[in-house]
Amino acid sequence: MSDQKQPKNESSSRPTSQSTNIVWHDGEVSRADRAKVLGHQGCTLWLTGLSGSGKSTVGVALEHALNARGVLAYRLDGDNVRHGLNANLGFGADDRKENIRRIGEVAKLFADAGVVTISSFISPYQADRDQVRKIHEDAGLKFLEVFINTPIEICEQRDPKGLYKKARAGEIKGFTGIDDPYELPKDPEIDLKTGENTIEQSVEQLVAELTKRGLINS
Amino acid sequence: MSDQKQPKNESSSRPTSQSTNIVWHDGEVSRADRAKVLGHQGCTLWLTGLSGSGKSTVGVALEHALNARGVLAYRLDGDNVRHGLNANLGFGADDRKENIRRIGEVAKLFADAGVVTISSFISPYQADRDQVRKIHEDAGLKFLEVFINTPIEICEQRDPKGLYKKARAGEIKGFTGIDDPYELPKDPEIDLKTGENTIEQSVEQLVAELTKRGLINS
Repeated sequence: MSDQKQPKNESSSRPTSQSTNIVWHDGEVSRADRAKVLGHQGCTLWLTGLSGSGKSTVGVALEHALNARGVLAYRLDGDNVRHGLNANLGFGADDRKENIRRIGEVAKLFADAGVVTISSFISPYQADRDQVRKIHEDAGLKFLEVFINTPIEICEQRDPKGLYKKARAGEIKGFTGIDDPYELPKDPEIDLKTGENTIEQSVEQLVAELTKRGLINS
Repeated sequence: MSDQKQPKNESSSRPTSQSTNIVWHDGEVSRADRAKVLGHQGCTLWLTGLSGSGKSTVGVALEHALNARGVLAYRLDGDNVRHGLNANLGFGADDRKENIRRIGEVAKLFADAGVVTISSFISPYQADRDQVRKIHEDAGLKFLEVFINTPIEICEQRDPKGLYKKARAGEIKGFTGIDDPYELPKDPEIDLKTGENTIEQSVEQLVAELTKRGLINS
């Protein structure tokens, strides 16, 4: 419950209002109640990979594919998180850890709400990803680690924002893959070789996994 | 966009996969796309009021009423926020402000996703509530301040957790309404006199407001 409760002797006198079909329930609305409204469960797809690996591209394409199937999906990415919830965080080690922690907690809330949540952040450390997995699994929520497995040579060649170039020139310090480690996912649920496959093939692979696991309807 | 993009020359060669009906889209999935899946828009109902005023009770009852109508609603409250996202915040002035700021940012993300978001926190300061309103309105999202307008005498009489008793005894310091101010909402969209009306009447009032504003279907 929240930060206050009504005394018990009040609820017994509550009439059922026919005009709006409001029926008094003692319990809270459950995850199953929301799944009935949506026609699917919530879960978190945690996309992790180097800068330029294609996390956003895959995430957006997956979101379109799910939307077309009538599945409520939502993407958490730098755009809607770094400028809002995490606007008061910098890029030092502690703040990067806190950045991922908060995103993980928000993803958990979205998954609890019934949303297929697509998180799209480099999230380079296994311990941080494991912690996000833990809070999901402790809450009985499905967490799928999705490794956007693109070799750094390809990422650096793409370099869509010129960040690798700046990192190589020493203008950016602590850049993942250059002078800060990217810890390869130990045992990801899904390994997407976006260097070899098309975006469509990657999305097909993701949709197939979600279907196989019973998270969305085939 | 997120933290990286694909180079433009890749997208032109992307085939449309017929097998999963995936069609390439250049843009991101929009709020309108999600509203089509849900059959309604998202918004935030920001419940504010004293401890014991009935925020949770009204919130839970509203959530049931919306769920019964096929509306995806989700409650943010102390239970799912204080132990997770905001577990690293205390109860000092700065942390209480940051608590409401983060909740406001998360509510905004939920509303953006299409969810009728019900926030249930005392949130005693007008400036904090105004700031949450601002980030919603700046993003083109509806924000409804809902004053759970229960006189403190009734709240203290209910005292479901014995907190008023402890505050009066000086065992809790900085308790809203006793030795810390509750700033009355200046111009709330909805004023619920839960001391005079039944929970069902309050929920009917809320559902009527949501319908009138075109946020849910009648």
